[in-house]
Amino acid sequence: MRQSRRGQVDPFIVMDVMEAAAKAEAGGRHIIHMEVGQPGTPAPEGARRALARALEQPLGYTVALGMPRLRQGIAGLYRRWYGVDLDPARVVVTTGSSGAFILAFSALFDAGDKVAIGAPGYPSYRQIMRAMSLEPVTIETRPEDRYQPRPDAIPDDVHGMMLASPGNPSGTMLSLDALRALLDRAADKGVSVISDEIYHGLSYGERAHSALEVSDDVFVINSFSKYFSMTGWRIGWMVVPESHLRTVERLAQNFFICPPHASQVAALAALDCEDEAQANLAVYAKNRALMLEGLPKAGFTRIAPPDGAFYVYADVSDLTDDSAAFAAEILDKAGVAVTPGLDFDAARGGRTLRFSYARATEDIAEGLRRLQDFMAGR
Amino acid sequence: MRQSRRGQVDPFIVMDVMEAAAKAEAGGRHIIHMEVGQPGTPAPEGARRALARALEQPLGYTVALGMPRLRQGIAGLYRRWYGVDLDPARVVVTTGSSGAFILAFSALFDAGDKVAIGAPGYPSYRQIMRAMSLEPVTIETRPEDRYQPRPDAIPDDVHGMMLASPGNPSGTMLSLDALRALLDRAADKGVSVISDEIYHGLSYGERAHSALEVSDDVFVINSFSKYFSMTGWRIGWMVVPESHLRTVERLAQNFFICPPHASQVAALAALDCEDEAQANLAVYAKNRALMLEGLPKAGFTRIAPPDGAFYVYADVSDLTDDSAAFAAEILDKAGVAVTPGLDFDAARGGRTLRFSYARATEDIAEGLRRLQDFMAGR
Repeated sequence: MRQSRRGQVDPFIVMDVMEAAAKAEAGGRHIIHMEVGQPGTPAPEGARRALARALEQPLGYTVALGMPRLRQGIAGLYRRWYGVDLDPARVVVTTGSSGAFILAFSALFDAGDKVAIGAPGYPSYRQIMRAMSLEPVTIETRPEDRYQPRPDAIPDDVHGMMLASPGNPSGTMLSLDALRALLDRAADKGVSVISDEIYHGLSYGERAHSALEVSDDVFVINSFSKYFSMTGWRIGWMVVPESHLRTVERLAQNFFICPPHASQVAALAALDCEDEAQANLAVYAKNRALMLEGLPKAGFTRIAPPDGAFYVYADVSDLTDDSAAFAAEILDKAGVAVTPGLDFDAARGGRTLRFSYARATEDIAEGLRRLQDFMAGR
Repeated sequence: MRQSRRGQVDPFIVMDVMEAAAKAEAGGRHIIHMEVGQPGTPAPEGARRALARALEQPLGYTVALGMPRLRQGIAGLYRRWYGVDLDPARVVVTTGSSGAFILAFSALFDAGDKVAIGAPGYPSYRQIMRAMSLEPVTIETRPEDRYQPRPDAIPDDVHGMMLASPGNPSGTMLSLDALRALLDRAADKGVSVISDEIYHGLSYGERAHSALEVSDDVFVINSFSKYFSMTGWRIGWMVVPESHLRTVERLAQNFFICPPHASQVAALAALDCEDEAQANLAVYAKNRALMLEGLPKAGFTRIAPPDGAFYVYADVSDLTDDSAAFAAEILDKAGVAVTPGLDFDAARGGRTLRFSYARATEDIAEGLRRLQDFMAGR
């Protein structure tokens, strides 16, 4: 049976770490998980209660763009978080941010089109693009630019560009000015911008800025996964320009029929659970402080400023040029699972690691102790 | 901002009917819904109870191919239903059958590849293909062939072919011999086959046959939506040849991360609720008998033999050549919403209608009375 070329996407390097960790755990060993990109907390209690109540009724298809009340509620977030007045009609509820990427790429780009993405960055941007016959064009960002692209780095021949602030794996954010400069330059060049704002709500100094504060002519993608602690629920959203609503609606009808109904019910209630989300954020803030103190003590001194999200991205070029082998060694000797940078940056990720601090504070503290002991004995 | 060509998929004609029906209902009118392709019943009680119990724990990401126990349970269905011994490793849990189509098309076909689909057929096959830069090639099936493709109708230059038994909108099924003849001919021609078996379990005479009874070299797609009455849960599955497992796993990791966790929990429990599913089937069987008696009485005499699913596809060429206008008239005058055939067959669907009998028996009976009155007065 035929295999497509587009289907031959790269494996995740971190899978090897995760499998080795699972094996070690199956053998009775205790592993600290700093490789995972998700909270250890459940969905907000109010969200779970709302779903429990809804379980008596049939949860059939909703309309493709999502329950109107959920779209209104999400539009309300934009007023609360950014002071942006957003027409709920422009909010598209999606099957996680994953579903939003598929819709955005389909609505904007044809086979062969080129789309710029920053490296390091979320690996699936590149793989989804390839699987959709698009050509990802890498912008190698620099540590001195906080791993974010500069406006003059936008290639001339691209049709689109991904932005991510806070970034994954870097956790760095774009200032409002930097965001505006990037959007302006992209507009001048006729480059369509997709802004991945999935870590919004999770920041530790200034709040993150939405591309919608600068322009309406942009696709903005977000999700209930991170701030609202609902990863496995696969429920997110996208704000699209009015010009693209009809296109996105038709694509959504055909690609997905609708986002998971139960998750929509839970998400609607989650919007009223910001207290619980803020309590989770306070834990991440504590974890982050521990990381910023503990990682340098262990010897991981070259780290990107983690303005948001729950990651620390470390340049370990003074320690290795084989981050996969180094991650394997850390797992084996320290009992801490971390992510080699290769998933985020194929060219330079051999010399970087990503540490996640999304889990419980005691785990983070224990992980840091283990890392310090391991590095001291290395 | 740019609009892609691939994003310009056709609108659903039935949406106009649904909007008009919603408007009529908002105005206080009672409408019988024979346009909808989903059960009116909730997910099985056992499924809902299992999820209610699971809500206390975090429902984070699962592995991309789905919970191992769910994959095992689905493999068990193949033994019970078809006597097929299926390795659970070949079962991929997907975000509805929709997610399975995206994965199958990505794993098998490159931009520009041609894929044969029967007309009439499920409209989203065509639209998803277009949005993925594939070229759907229509096989016009004939009423005398029960709206199923004949082996000699497989075009020479296609890379793939969709099969659907029971078909939507026709409800007709392929015999095991017919299925084998199609798969054999496709194999001879090097054509990759995707068998859509989403209506399996819903048949009224002989059981439906799975392509897996004939060959392992085929993609088989199914879902919890119809037989298990879980449409809005967006949970389905795909059985893939061993040769394609790694490809599909990587695509699933990037495209979807995982299927909705809550829906997986519910689906696993649903596998133990066949009694409830069979009770729903008994209702459809009663409805179907009413339809087969009532539709001809009303004047809809040319109908495909509805072996399975919950649809009757009617040739109304003696009544109209504008099925959209006819459906609008039926809604307006009879208060019954039906689907114009145009969504399923762009060339010939102006002369066909699809009637769904998925809802409560009293609704079906009332709908038939209204249709008879309307037609008598026409």
